[in-house]
Amino acid sequence: MLSRAIRSSPKLPVTRSIVRTRHFSSLDLVPNEPAGPSVITDKVPGPEGIAASKEIDTFQDSRTHVIVPNYEESNGNYLIDADGNVLLDVFAQISSIALGYNVPALLELAKTDEFAKAAMNRPALGSFPPVQWAEWLKTGLLTVTPKGLDQLITTLCGSSANETAFKCSFMAYRQRERGGPEVAFTKEEMDSCMLNQTPGAPQLSVLSFKSGFHGRLFGSLSATRSKAIHKVDIPAFDWPAAPFPELKYPLDEHVKENEAEEKRCLEEYEKILVESKITRPVAAVIIEPILSEGGDRHASNDFFRQLRLIAKKHDAYFIVDEVQTGVGATGTFWAHEKWGLKQGEEPDFVTFSKKMQAAGVYHKKETRPNAPYRNYNTWMGDPIRALQAREMIKLIKQHDLVSHTAATGSSLASSFKSVFSSSVASGKVMNLRGEGDGTYLAWDMASPSLRDSFVGKMRVNGIQIGGCGDQTVRLRPMLTFGEKHAEILVSTTEKVLREL
Amino acid sequence: MLSRAIRSSPKLPVTRSIVRTRHFSSLDLVPNEPAGPSVITDKVPGPEGIAASKEIDTFQDSRTHVIVPNYEESNGNYLIDADGNVLLDVFAQISSIALGYNVPALLELAKTDEFAKAAMNRPALGSFPPVQWAEWLKTGLLTVTPKGLDQLITTLCGSSANETAFKCSFMAYRQRERGGPEVAFTKEEMDSCMLNQTPGAPQLSVLSFKSGFHGRLFGSLSATRSKAIHKVDIPAFDWPAAPFPELKYPLDEHVKENEAEEKRCLEEYEKILVESKITRPVAAVIIEPILSEGGDRHASNDFFRQLRLIAKKHDAYFIVDEVQTGVGATGTFWAHEKWGLKQGEEPDFVTFSKKMQAAGVYHKKETRPNAPYRNYNTWMGDPIRALQAREMIKLIKQHDLVSHTAATGSSLASSFKSVFSSSVASGKVMNLRGEGDGTYLAWDMASPSLRDSFVGKMRVNGIQIGGCGDQTVRLRPMLTFGEKHAEILVSTTEKVLREL
Repeated sequence: MLSRAIRSSPKLPVTRSIVRTRHFSSLDLVPNEPAGPSVITDKVPGPEGIAASKEIDTFQDSRTHVIVPNYEESNGNYLIDADGNVLLDVFAQISSIALGYNVPALLELAKTDEFAKAAMNRPALGSFPPVQWAEWLKTGLLTVTPKGLDQLITTLCGSSANETAFKCSFMAYRQRERGGPEVAFTKEEMDSCMLNQTPGAPQLSVLSFKSGFHGRLFGSLSATRSKAIHKVDIPAFDWPAAPFPELKYPLDEHVKENEAEEKRCLEEYEKILVESKITRPVAAVIIEPILSEGGDRHASNDFFRQLRLIAKKHDAYFIVDEVQTGVGATGTFWAHEKWGLKQGEEPDFVTFSKKMQAAGVYHKKETRPNAPYRNYNTWMGDPIRALQAREMIKLIKQHDLVSHTAATGSSLASSFKSVFSSSVASGKVMNLRGEGDGTYLAWDMASPSLRDSFVGKMRVNGIQIGGCGDQTVRLRPMLTFGEKHAEILVSTTEKVLREL
Repeated sequence: MLSRAIRSSPKLPVTRSIVRTRHFSSLDLVPNEPAGPSVITDKVPGPEGIAASKEIDTFQDSRTHVIVPNYEESNGNYLIDADGNVLLDVFAQISSIALGYNVPALLELAKTDEFAKAAMNRPALGSFPPVQWAEWLKTGLLTVTPKGLDQLITTLCGSSANETAFKCSFMAYRQRERGGPEVAFTKEEMDSCMLNQTPGAPQLSVLSFKSGFHGRLFGSLSATRSKAIHKVDIPAFDWPAAPFPELKYPLDEHVKENEAEEKRCLEEYEKILVESKITRPVAAVIIEPILSEGGDRHASNDFFRQLRLIAKKHDAYFIVDEVQTGVGATGTFWAHEKWGLKQGEEPDFVTFSKKMQAAGVYHKKETRPNAPYRNYNTWMGDPIRALQAREMIKLIKQHDLVSHTAATGSSLASSFKSVFSSSVASGKVMNLRGEGDGTYLAWDMASPSLRDSFVGKMRVNGIQIGGCGDQTVRLRPMLTFGEKHAEILVSTTEKVLREL
């Protein structure tokens, strides 16, 4: 159990944090959870899961299947699969379930007339918004606007949220070059854009960072630099990528080196911004607060603050991609809150999706396009996901789940530190990171194959955990993940490390 | 009323068709519709609608708002707005409502446990598909697979469906060049793609057609050639566009000219395919069966069949974009069914969204990528939209709504022909088209401003109708649109033309 790990390291303030989480009634939201994991098949997936995947494979690629869940039976932090295995889920559908499976309060919402009618009368929001649209957003998504950003464009997924921010940036950048919103497009611009040629289709770029992930559509994939298998064979825009610091852990033992590494990256970043001005100016910079798919890579708050200031200095808009980090799990509602950006230094765009279930872009009024129909499509989001987000935001606030997750994460970090400094982890685990970022903890395993074995063995031991990067294990539990779950997670990690 | 228009032209077989639609119980699906339109404010939108838009405009661009509906009260083919105006809706949320508002059978579905749990436990479908996933699709979306295409990738919207087809095409094209699925990527490919450079990010293209519309994201927008305002200031891929025939109407009076025009376009199309091989080979051709946003532009079945065969001849994949035309409203379930493609000539990809509510790409197993995670993202569609599609497909079949719509469209075309050949339309209306394409009728007005006046006056007279292209009016009614609605639509059109 967790207690064993903690007792071996009496200095760590684990118990206090764990006790503190009791004040937050996170488990009230998921009252019918199983008592713990239970694996009844020799392998996971078992025969039923394998048969279900095979059936799906007749019409859809099943090679990426992990397990085939029975969502009707799953509950809270526990996923139940086709074979009846009960797994503690700390991956949460690639970080996209905020509160848990079959949360009674959300099922209740789904059964309301309001929700049913919103689901079955899906509007073209840009032209025929429901009469309740302002109310739904003002009591929901607009109650968590990142500081300084009071405008919202809703979309259907994270990739399109990012591409919407790109489009806004390109339009605003060209508008500034043109001399303002009232300056008309030239005939040459209007004609050439129809041929995908300059000046109407300008040679501008989005700068992203190596190991960054921003989506899989053609614009977002051009900014994505996670893995070659995501990009190979797909035409891409000739956009630049700046280096992201490779920090050394534990941080307190590598202060100087890490400072130098961040400085190196900032210099290279600024150099690209300057040099691009001649060839393909950078209209926008996009960054994740924690580079997630790319291996849970962190940098200091000061590094991010410098990124923002340098972008401003070179007239590039600054997009913070909070698709994975947003909605409380890093210990603040938005991960970039920690950077300490001052008034006037706020990002120009913050994008979200995943745990919010709704997706979109928060921005400033100055980046609203100068003419209608420039950022427009049929659906422009989905009202039921806005309703779901509203309910989840209400519950997150009511149950103070952001503080709860900060506390849980802090205690969990201490427990892992203790386990990973013991002999069971020796030579197997390194670079524990994410302390202070809620439950967004991650560590590297000694090799990609060891990581894969670890993840597989965790599953057989009742934990659905995920990887990222080449050899990283990342935690992405829900906001209702608490003391009970942490104990199971840590003790199982210890057990599996021992077996590896 | 319709009868007046019909009586004036006794040769037209309108009555038979209208009587025939009575056999289809389309109205059983929407039993509580208002008896007809009713406009109670001087202008539409009225004061409540304007106030609602103003409130939304504090956080979201409202310049594209048409009306602000009260979806809770809307019913069947009738949209009720914030001011209580009752409008017959023949635009259907830009062609995305298949059966009507608040269809009892769909509201019932929304209230089931199955739907509620699917809504609130949204999976990462590529990795954790629900145990019912195969059943949901095999009894729904897979019962309407276009001939020859038994594979399905689900997505969230039409733009991403098209971009998924692009990605599949690029991968399959490069795989063929490489020598097969088992040939490994080179190190140079893997390294260069991370820098967005060739050969990993290849110089390949998608050929589309002038006036075509395929979406607003960066890949789909590069293929879109509808209007400059959709494209200006946005970087685009250097992809080619072929001319689409500008047919003259009525078709039977311009047979020779139209044949020559189609021949000219086919020659130019093939020339581009050949010439692109040197610079930026065309990996895929994408075409809508009716160019919708671009002004409801039609071509002959033979033209489309030739497009397909010429693409094959030059090794380009062939994507039919049925995002707007799919799901029965053109008188066949898929509009391209009419082309008469023989076995072995089927499209490689058919994309859908809008009226299906679910979105995705039907394709062949040979275009499944050779490795997992190449076409992958977090959600890969939404199970509740698959459930909704399943229910709608069931209802469409039960009520034979495709035949119903073919018959309604045929009678409607006759009625419009009659009205438009009378003095009220003289000098105002031209190029009625879409006969034989169900209710997908369209016509041009003498000028863009006349079109806009017409659409505005129709609204004040109780009809929500839409435009496209520069001066086109397009009909996009639901599949439950029938005789009663047609009478109102035709008589109101006649009245408004008289007033213009």
